[in-house]
Amino acid sequence: MINSINMKTKVDKYILSALDEDITSEDVSTNSILRSKTPGTANLICKEDGIICGLDIFIRVFNLLGDVKFMTSYKDGDHVKNGDIIGTITGDMRTILSGERTALNYLQRMSGVTTYTSSLVKALEGSNTELLDTRKTTPNMRIFEKYAVRVGGCKSHRYNLSDGVLLKDNHIGAAGGIKEAVTLAREYAPFVRMIEVEVEDLDMVNEALEAGADIIMLDNMDDDTMKKAVEIIGDKALTECSGNITLDRLKTISDIGVDYVSCGALTHSYPILDFSLKNLKPL
Amino acid sequence: MINSINMKTKVDKYILSALDEDITSEDVSTNSILRSKTPGTANLICKEDGIICGLDIFIRVFNLLGDVKFMTSYKDGDHVKNGDIIGTITGDMRTILSGERTALNYLQRMSGVTTYTSSLVKALEGSNTELLDTRKTTPNMRIFEKYAVRVGGCKSHRYNLSDGVLLKDNHIGAAGGIKEAVTLAREYAPFVRMIEVEVEDLDMVNEALEAGADIIMLDNMDDDTMKKAVEIIGDKALTECSGNITLDRLKTISDIGVDYVSCGALTHSYPILDFSLKNLKPL
Amino acid sequence: MINSINMKTKVDKYILSALDEDITSEDVSTNSILRSKTPGTANLICKEDGIICGLDIFIRVFNLLGDVKFMTSYKDGDHVKNGDIIGTITGDMRTILSGERTALNYLQRMSGVTTYTSSLVKALEGSNTELLDTRKTTPNMRIFEKYAVRVGGCKSHRYNLSDGVLLKDNHIGAAGGIKEAVTLAREYAPFVRMIEVEVEDLDMVNEALEAGADIIMLDNMDDDTMKKAVEIIGDKALTECSGNITLDRLKTISDIGVDYVSCGALTHSYPILDFSLKNLKPL
Amino acid sequence: MINSINMKTKVDKYILSALDEDITSEDVSTNSILRSKTPGTANLICKEDGIICGLDIFIRVFNLLGDVKFMTSYKDGDHVKNGDIIGTITGDMRTILSGERTALNYLQRMSGVTTYTSSLVKALEGSNTELLDTRKTTPNMRIFEKYAVRVGGCKSHRYNLSDGVLLKDNHIGAAGGIKEAVTLAREYAPFVRMIEVEVEDLDMVNEALEAGADIIMLDNMDDDTMKKAVEIIGDKALTECSGNITLDRLKTISDIGVDYVSCGALTHSYPILDFSLKNLKPL
Amino acid sequence: MINSINMKTKVDKYILSALDEDITSEDVSTNSILRSKTPGTANLICKEDGIICGLDIFIRVFNLLGDVKFMTSYKDGDHVKNGDIIGTITGDMRTILSGERTALNYLQRMSGVTTYTSSLVKALEGSNTELLDTRKTTPNMRIFEKYAVRVGGCKSHRYNLSDGVLLKDNHIGAAGGIKEAVTLAREYAPFVRMIEVEVEDLDMVNEALEAGADIIMLDNMDDDTMKKAVEIIGDKALTECSGNITLDRLKTISDIGVDYVSCGALTHSYPILDFSLKNLKPL
Amino acid sequence: MINSINMKTKVDKYILSALDEDITSEDVSTNSILRSKTPGTANLICKEDGIICGLDIFIRVFNLLGDVKFMTSYKDGDHVKNGDIIGTITGDMRTILSGERTALNYLQRMSGVTTYTSSLVKALEGSNTELLDTRKTTPNMRIFEKYAVRVGGCKSHRYNLSDGVLLKDNHIGAAGGIKEAVTLAREYAPFVRMIEVEVEDLDMVNEALEAGADIIMLDNMDDDTMKKAVEIIGDKALTECSGNITLDRLKTISDIGVDYVSCGALTHSYPILDFSLKNLKPL
Repeated sequence: MINSINMKTKVDKYILSALDEDITSEDVSTNSILRSKTPGTANLICKEDGIICGLDIFIRVFNLLGDVKFMTSYKDGDHVKNGDIIGTITGDMRTILSGERTALNYLQRMSGVTTYTSSLVKALEGSNTELLDTRKTTPNMRIFEKYAVRVGGCKSHRYNLSDGVLLKDNHIGAAGGIKEAVTLAREYAPFVRMIEVEVEDLDMVNEALEAGADIIMLDNMDDDTMKKAVEIIGDKALTECSGNITLDRLKTISDIGVDYVSCGALTHSYPILDFSLKNLKPL
Repeated sequence: MINSINMKTKVDKYILSALDEDITSEDVSTNSILRSKTPGTANLICKEDGIICGLDIFIRVFNLLGDVKFMTSYKDGDHVKNGDIIGTITGDMRTILSGERTALNYLQRMSGVTTYTSSLVKALEGSNTELLDTRKTTPNMRIFEKYAVRVGGCKSHRYNLSDGVLLKDNHIGAAGGIKEAVTLAREYAPFVRMIEVEVEDLDMVNEALEAGADIIMLDNMDDDTMKKAVEIIGDKALTECSGNITLDRLKTISDIGVDYVSCGALTHSYPILDFSLKNLKPL
Repeated sequence: MINSINMKTKVDKYILSALDEDITSEDVSTNSILRSKTPGTANLICKEDGIICGLDIFIRVFNLLGDVKFMTSYKDGDHVKNGDIIGTITGDMRTILSGERTALNYLQRMSGVTTYTSSLVKALEGSNTELLDTRKTTPNMRIFEKYAVRVGGCKSHRYNLSDGVLLKDNHIGAAGGIKEAVTLAREYAPFVRMIEVEVEDLDMVNEALEAGADIIMLDNMDDDTMKKAVEIIGDKALTECSGNITLDRLKTISDIGVDYVSCGALTHSYPILDFSLKNLKPL
Repeated sequence: MINSINMKTKVDKYILSALDEDITSEDVSTNSILRSKTPGTANLICKEDGIICGLDIFIRVFNLLGDVKFMTSYKDGDHVKNGDIIGTITGDMRTILSGERTALNYLQRMSGVTTYTSSLVKALEGSNTELLDTRKTTPNMRIFEKYAVRVGGCKSHRYNLSDGVLLKDNHIGAAGGIKEAVTLAREYAPFVRMIEVEVEDLDMVNEALEAGADIIMLDNMDDDTMKKAVEIIGDKALTECSGNITLDRLKTISDIGVDYVSCGALTHSYPILDFSLKNLKPL
Repeated sequence: MINSINMKTKVDKYILSALDEDITSEDVSTNSILRSKTPGTANLICKEDGIICGLDIFIRVFNLLGDVKFMTSYKDGDHVKNGDIIGTITGDMRTILSGERTALNYLQRMSGVTTYTSSLVKALEGSNTELLDTRKTTPNMRIFEKYAVRVGGCKSHRYNLSDGVLLKDNHIGAAGGIKEAVTLAREYAPFVRMIEVEVEDLDMVNEALEAGADIIMLDNMDDDTMKKAVEIIGDKALTECSGNITLDRLKTISDIGVDYVSCGALTHSYPILDFSLKNLKPL
Repeated sequence: MINSINMKTKVDKYILSALDEDITSEDVSTNSILRSKTPGTANLICKEDGIICGLDIFIRVFNLLGDVKFMTSYKDGDHVKNGDIIGTITGDMRTILSGERTALNYLQRMSGVTTYTSSLVKALEGSNTELLDTRKTTPNMRIFEKYAVRVGGCKSHRYNLSDGVLLKDNHIGAAGGIKEAVTLAREYAPFVRMIEVEVEDLDMVNEALEAGADIIMLDNMDDDTMKKAVEIIGDKALTECSGNITLDRLKTISDIGVDYVSCGALTHSYPILDFSLKNLKPL
């Protein structure tokens, strides 16, 4: 999650880099008009129904450019409606104008991810199946997208290649079999890692169980095979399924009783949720 | 555009930062199995019809991790079909496995942008209206998304706040009128900049013309107003329209004869185009 | 221009890098004598008549090392005389001593640029010709020198290679002619860019006009040719001249009626304006 | 000095930062015309008599953008004349055009420093007095300017605040006297440091000698006082003088027999030496 | 582990920073003597019995300064003896001299860690107890020390705070009990994480088991309590013990049957293993 | 030394890099339990007798993560005993928990260096021989270790390769003799540098004196030779000895009257001094 600690140590570098994309020397339009500090205020307006996420990032963008205050009664995860006034930003109008686009670019995308995620999580309500994100995140947006996914009610898969072990077909092939791959991983990986193995058929399910996999990922299985896999595995390992997960199929998957279902689209194909900054006026 | 020059000076820092997101200490799964250099090969496969973009970025990701060769007969802008083998990558299997996700994350998004852009450009074919991108790009993805938009046949608007002047309602209000705003900008901005003014009604159109604006942006106008605006402006300035541009409305806009139409969705709400790396095997 | 926004996002990295040149581990002399925080005060003294520029940079250098106050009644662009007490700096004497050289290095150079620029601008007073700067700036000093040039009354040319189009002989040759070059640039460059073409004789002037150049740069022309060029061009394009511009020749150029004259020496061959820090004493 | 080792560890970061100033996204003019790799060649031409310095930096600028070859029979420190063809650069014409300005900005300034330094060194030929540089260098140009100064025949003073001890009036005042200051410095500074003390009159000279200063800097003394100071000091310490050193006064100073004379103008008020890149043509 | 992939993405930044500590402008001694490239060769000599580790890092230091070849028949983990010639380095003598100290600083420390670790691992041979490292690593040396620990035969605990969950007394107190803490962690942490709980007595052992902890760390327990704890836990969780682990006590711990024993001294209190570079001579 | 000035310009980058090692995305354990800001307090406890060093660094680690107060009556250089409560830290418990390990890693090592150094300095008390540190510091720890060495009463040798001249056997060989090496160094090095020469026998001592060396390092000499060397040198140069310096031999060395003795073990083979953070509780 994002809090005051990793805001400073992790998040700021991404925001500063994004501001650098948009302001390579100065905001020429704004500085043409406003030649000195001019206190002002503006409203953050919601233009589309959904769930808001990224308020701390939104305001942090401005604060990396200058002192700006933001008053709001909303928090990440709240439902918002087209037309809602989300909050009021107050500060040097030059700071507000120069930071506007970057701040909205973050807020719109994070809210887009949360809104989309939430719609899938809702489909799993009442079941024992939990939704997971993936590493199919936008480059340099992972910390923002993974946070937005969580605000949307989704649980986290591994954060990156260093903090989780997932043995796929290529690893298994290179090792010479599931058993060999799991043994090598158990020996090599820090002992606090669970070992997850990706399987494609029931033979592989059995092999993975024998090899002592902690989690078995059922990759692109049809419903029948998945059902049998879940029965075979029982309590001996956690189960995850993935591969072209659609809203429609979530019900079937949860009925089958898979523990986790992971979905790349949460972070790779979401539309934004629209917000804009309006009513800028001097104080 | 991205070429060998700004690949080194600009692009690499984004890719390295993205790799750092995904490999904070090491790829534990891969290094468990492959304890030393193991030459291998894999295929880049297209899994969805569309237009490919980002091949140089795709391969650069791997080459920032190690020496890898990529053979392909495709180039950015080519149409691709589900099932097409796009190319073959050869190198240390550890490099291929560790770079795979980041390389695909770029390729899928860039191809998604190009494919989506191309569909809008096609709708304008035969007209004198040209499509433009915006600054509503994903933070730290602008150079990639702006490139993908161009490959899709779209022309570029300003790159950022430093290299173009666009006077919006807030600037005009702060200056005390369009005339005052344009005068201030003409005086302040580097003399090579065109001055663009955003207007909302016909009175503002007239004011902008009198102020000597080079480009007039017709913001959220209905068709009738837009038509009249274009007639009033004639050859005296370039025209641009923006605001909730949909595929359907493009025909009307080009019939009216607006010079340029800009569209934020090109870079903020595109779905990815799916690709995967398959058939990894040792050489 | 430099304000509180790009001070943080752009300027600080240059100042910090300059401080790193001068303090690789610590200020040994100062730390030998002052072993703990010692509040003190010192005067910034002008040692040469001219125009001051860079006061915000001067004080920022110290503030990147510690808390320091600066009281002054001067602002950038003010005339200063040898012996003037420009202001008083107050803070830990170690901060004052350790930052002194770097702060003066900036202030002296920026004031040198402004003073020199101002002398050329004065020569153009009353005419319709405006002075322009160039990209012949000191590496890693562009933002400071371009700012100082403006304070001196000079208008800005493009900031860098990304935000302006200037087609020189080499571009024209590579394109196969002025017309071809302008067409390629018009197609490629963001549509908000004016297209400037460098010409050497009257044939090229005509070609540039036909090609629709927005600005025509008259490169190293003698007075007669320049006069004819300006007549031919009339209102059809803006005119700029450059090449070994001296104070003497400025009158002729403005009489001819060239719109802009650019001068590299503003940023590549200025002498500093001398200032020093004096009367340091404990509080 | 600059060699292949600190080129990588120190120099590249400054050059890359300078390139970033000039190419924030791409070279729009060049990329408009040259859409793909186009091998070409160009000449580096001298346009002013002087001494050349910075050839390795000149070519390094291009090589940080792409592969470029440079053939020359000149080396740093050689005399050059207006019209001399210094060398031939060969590579992708886009690399040549995009790097041209930054490469020349370095070469012109470094050659300017060397040429100016050399003229002062010549005035000291045959004497026992040696010329020294100062810390009055352009921010982020110290390594280049200090190198150019040496190529011009000048010896180096301390590189920065960390690697030399120079006790000025402010340090002496804070310590309570020269003796106290030298004692504190001798105790605090790494034992390999010589201790230099700045003095303004003969009493201070005597105090500095008693305190055991290794080097005594005679600050802004008139000729008579300087003469007496040098006699008093004899072999007991090295002597340095500074303060508004002009070409004319160098003879007097060397006649008096001061060991070293330091001069800020070498690095703060030099004019450039003019070079240009000409005759670019495809291969 | 360190391989060619994370050497580039992770390790180089630490080495470059270390070189920057030692070469802030240039190696004055070496550059005084060797004014141009001078090919030479030198031997890496072992001066103390032990186990070598860090050969790739040793050579990488030089290669970040210039091209250098290293011939050796040793590899990380090999036993070395005082007087052994480990290998021969060939390249520009300036590169060899300038990189020598930093290269040895890494090699000596990494070999020191491996040698010390190996002595503890040996004490556990034949038992089912495995040795673990900790996060008590030297700042900015973790990747090197964790690698050296592994070469010494020790298994890795979590790499950092982001990739493992260890609930200590403070976490448990804040949560209101072990059960609450484990529940919160299970809900919050990525689902691939094992949950480890630190306990101090048998009541806490029971609570941890009931809470479903995957690993139970027995903190500073006496032998009797530890024995009972291991019996209670059986196969229901993995066990780890820590706290002032000495060579003598390892036998007792392995007899008790604890699965893992972690030891901070491996990375915080190791003496170096001495190596030197000798017999440098020109080629 | 470390003070508020180089804390900002130099030290912070090392601490931030160390925090980045330990928190690559977030502190999962702490953030599981403490979901929002929770003010608390904890004690810094000493667990081993010795001398404390690094208190400013200890608290700076936390302050780079958030606002934290530290109350203590101890300062660097104070003797501490097992069980002493060194101070109390107050702030968000998440900040305290996330920074704890990195803060202790610095404090324990710096105190270890100071404690060890102090024991050697004590052995030289009453003599005229002073202890020196070396460049055998841990990579990226030099500023911390050199500071800790000074707090322990040891004087500093050169900080790095740029700010001191030490001509070793390899330099002498390459130059063709001591005289030649000293001449080259005297000509090349900044004139404020003392020239130190490493010698192995009495012939070399004489050569070094004739060459005018400022400091002569007696390398690995037996007691008799060292004695003769010191007699020969007298007041003509400073003397330093080095090479396997043990506590026992210090007495002999000081009796012989060597001015300085340098010791690598101060920074390469010290054990830590143990501290821990205890009694964390909410406020």
